[in-house]
Amino acid sequence: MILRELRHPIVLAPLAGGPSTPALAAAVSDAGGLGFLASGYRSADQMSADIRALRAQTRAPFGVNLFVLSSPDVDKPALRAYVERLRAAEAARYETDPAEPRFEDDDWDAKLVVLRDDPVPVVSFTFGCPAPELIASLQALDAEVWVTVTSLAEARIASDAGADALVLQGIEAGGHRAAFADQDDAEGLSVLALLRLVAGAVDLPLVAAGGIADGGAVAAVLAAGASAAQVGTAFLLAPEAGTNPAHRAALATETPTALTRAFTGRLARGLENRFLLEHSEAAPSAYPHIHHVTAPIRATARARGDADGFNLWAGQTHQLAKELPAAEIVSALAADARAALERALR
Amino acid sequence: MILRELRHPIVLAPLAGGPSTPALAAAVSDAGGLGFLASGYRSADQMSADIRALRAQTRAPFGVNLFVLSSPDVDKPALRAYVERLRAAEAARYETDPAEPRFEDDDWDAKLVVLRDDPVPVVSFTFGCPAPELIASLQALDAEVWVTVTSLAEARIASDAGADALVLQGIEAGGHRAAFADQDDAEGLSVLALLRLVAGAVDLPLVAAGGIADGGAVAAVLAAGASAAQVGTAFLLAPEAGTNPAHRAALATETPTALTRAFTGRLARGLENRFLLEHSEAAPSAYPHIHHVTAPIRATARARGDADGFNLWAGQTHQLAKELPAAEIVSALAADARAALERALR
Repeated sequence: MILRELRHPIVLAPLAGGPSTPALAAAVSDAGGLGFLASGYRSADQMSADIRALRAQTRAPFGVNLFVLSSPDVDKPALRAYVERLRAAEAARYETDPAEPRFEDDDWDAKLVVLRDDPVPVVSFTFGCPAPELIASLQALDAEVWVTVTSLAEARIASDAGADALVLQGIEAGGHRAAFADQDDAEGLSVLALLRLVAGAVDLPLVAAGGIADGGAVAAVLAAGASAAQVGTAFLLAPEAGTNPAHRAALATETPTALTRAFTGRLARGLENRFLLEHSEAAPSAYPHIHHVTAPIRATARARGDADGFNLWAGQTHQLAKELPAAEIVSALAADARAALERALR
Repeated sequence: MILRELRHPIVLAPLAGGPSTPALAAAVSDAGGLGFLASGYRSADQMSADIRALRAQTRAPFGVNLFVLSSPDVDKPALRAYVERLRAAEAARYETDPAEPRFEDDDWDAKLVVLRDDPVPVVSFTFGCPAPELIASLQALDAEVWVTVTSLAEARIASDAGADALVLQGIEAGGHRAAFADQDDAEGLSVLALLRLVAGAVDLPLVAAGGIADGGAVAAVLAAGASAAQVGTAFLLAPEAGTNPAHRAALATETPTALTRAFTGRLARGLENRFLLEHSEAAPSAYPHIHHVTAPIRATARARGDADGFNLWAGQTHQLAKELPAAEIVSALAADARAALERALR
């Protein structure tokens, strides 16, 4: 079990959509945490190249994250209305039309071929739980399989399917909610509530995710029974991360976060900006359809450094992120967590 | 500072609206935690009687919680429509009309007279921050003043007003959100996120509240910098609590919780039941107006043991609550928290 062998109980969140780089994952793994590569929005070939680049930089274990996408029942008139809304509101501003909505499975089959031909130490899944046979087939190649869950019901499904560990994502987390279905989740369990509920019901190592950005929070989830903390936002300012400069600048402010479907058609937490505030209420559940629709608008906004026109994914504690090399972030998180636990015991 | 003198870092949540009893507060204080009396929905005379009853049962310190109510701008047509909706949907079922909406300040002035004539060790406030002069006047009588907050902005206001300690209420908490204004809070900070944000910005002792129902969660918030955990739902099954039997039975299930204004006109977290699911979307922000409107319906449902007709306040981890005497809950929380911290350090 890789979680038991880590020098520090720090797991890098996958950070799909830009921030994830082989250099960031390598730095975290080399520092004694567990680096992760996001394969989301990347082709199988790109994922394969990322894995090679990572291996060229470290011999330490690492993980690769895959999106589990199934084509949901999309409300087509609502989706069409949203596309036209964006055309009216955004096309002139960014001098580009929204793209046509489409479903893609994120190159699922080809990625699994890559991961079978050239197994990696850990494969984690987000947005669903793979079939038990698929999980077993990866385990047979000595890969550990982790499944990301947001509720006790999802934790039981993943445990029954044979997962080696669960990533428990609380409502605090930046980026997409990992829920198996993109429903309005009235419960919205926090990472601490989810940890205590799952720890009492499922006998698997638990990795806690959501709003964990400093050693005090790492200490908290370890005390609550997690084997490690998965940390995302706190690495977004590291020089190794591929975070857009306008995104970096926004993270350092006290701007509140909110959950929105405006950018991708799936609930995700980001900093409030113009696009989020103007379009969240109108955005239907349609993922990854709306991700593709907004892609040209977001690309233009990013290129212009316009933080009001693209998704600024961020967890609830984003202002705690520090601009430090990833290795220093790992060692500070671990050292501060230990100090916090010792302080709490006194 | 009473927080430093407690044998166990466990504070009883006030639990207004039924569960709060002098016997419960006395049992928690006597066991080495800090018991609290809810004065919410009680007259000043009733509060005074509760304090006398509590003092007859323990010589240990305790606290009294007050609601800070200001008459908000109520959408009168929306409120009227909600009353008529309840009349149509509920009056026949419960053989009682909804009451007329009204604003009351929960006997604020008279309660402060009582607390000045006969000071108590701790006075905590919910739904707002009293004026600095009022806080200072209580402190002059050797009462500690705690203010409940849900955001960094509220924490700064309470700190600037002179509070001795802050109760940080996370989105996990059962019962009413303590926010100074009943707004739709897109951020909804978890207790852990709130703790880490406030700990870095405000130099006051922090009491963490929200979904803390077992020793693992107590350990977590202590590790994250809290001086104590405020625990509510985990005491609802204690024999000393005034919890309605139908409420007790519902707490033991895995029923999800949700935030709703259906019962009182202010966001509060309770177990999903028929009334909550049918009326949440229609309920406007109007507190305590709607509390008074639904009171006769809820009273009848309670008397009938009908868990679908009244508010089943519950935090996100309600199924962890145990049916034990309050003193045993206090000592188990403290012992399990210590064990969890020691385990995390290994």
